Amino acid sequence: MKATVHVMLKQAVLDPQGEAVKTALGALGFEGVEAVRQGKVIELDLAETDAEAARAAVTAMCEKLLANTVIESFRVEVA
Amino acid sequence: MKATVHVMLKQAVLDPQGEAVKTALGALGFEGVEAVRQGKVIELDLAETDAEAARAAVTAMCEKLLANTVIESFRVEVA
Repeated sequence: MKATVHVMLKQAVLDPQGEAVKTALGALGFEGVEAVRQGKVIELDLAETDAEAARAAVTAMCEKLLANTVIESFRVEVA
Repeated sequence: MKATVHVMLKQAVLDPQGEAVKTALGALGFEGVEAVRQGKVIELDLAETDAEAARAAVTAMCEKLLANTVIESFRVEVA
């Protein structure tokens, strides 16, 4: 089954990449962009067929590898 | 209003970052991970209040800056 993980910097953490995108959009003439935050999305194809087991496995993957939980938050979707 | 953009490498394009994540997950003992693809997620806060206008603006931003449409596909969600 497929799982999608969103990893974003926590709100309190400065996001220079997002700031750079915001500045670049302004320079290109796009107005009214008030804030930009950039994160990662990771799509996984899993052999696991049970949704709850898949969610638990992906959560463990996030905590061990995919996200730095000190500065990043993550969200797991299983479909 | 808020917009979320997902930018992923097209299926035909090799994703070495995703492959590296897959290999690392295997090395950490996570089994049954068949494929991994990694992309970007960009969250924008817009001054625009009309959903259709916001979607059009964000699509233009993707085509001009946020995605490289030669090798990447993007998806816009407005909420």
